[in-house]
Amino acid sequence: MSKVKVYVKLKDTVLDPEGQTICSSLHKLGYKFVKNVRVGKIFEIEMDDNVENINEKIEEFCNKLLVNPIVEEFSYEIVED
Amino acid sequence: MSKVKVYVKLKDTVLDPEGQTICSSLHKLGYKFVKNVRVGKIFEIEMDDNVENINEKIEEFCNKLLVNPIVEEFSYEIVED
Repeated sequence: MSKVKVYVKLKDTVLDPEGQTICSSLHKLGYKFVKNVRVGKIFEIEMDDNVENINEKIEEFCNKLLVNPIVEEFSYEIVED
Repeated sequence: MSKVKVYVKLKDTVLDPEGQTICSSLHKLGYKFVKNVRVGKIFEIEMDDNVENINEKIEEFCNKLLVNPIVEEFSYEIVED
C-alpha cells in the first residue's frame, strides 16, 4: 500500500483569519515571541501500489476535490510503504 | 525569523468521518485505487530567533491551544530561516 501526503495551504496573498486568531491567543497566553501563524491541511491518502500515471491522477483529484485553486495551493509527496 | 511547522492529526484509534467522506467522494469520481483518507492540520508559526527553551515552549502552547490531547497527536519541526 502506497501513501501520498497532500499539503494544502492558503496562498500567501490570502488573509488567514484563523491564523491571526491563534496568533493573538498565543500572545494572550504569554508567547510574545510568536510573530505570525498560518493554518493549512494535510490529507494522508492510502492507495494501491503501482497505479498508472499516479502523479497526474493525484493532481487531478486535488484540483477536483481537495483544493480550492482560487485561494489555496498544494504540494504532495508519495511515501512508499 | 525562525519558523516551526506543527503537524496535528487524529490518533489512529479515532474515527475520521471527514476522511471517510472524502474517500467515498474520490471513489464516486472514479479514483477507486484510493483505500483510506485521514485529514490533519498544519500550523506554520513564525517567531523570533534564539528563544530560550523553545522546544518546551512549543510543546506547551501546542498542548494548551493547538491540540486536543484526548483525540489528537502532534509533531513539529523547527525550520531556521
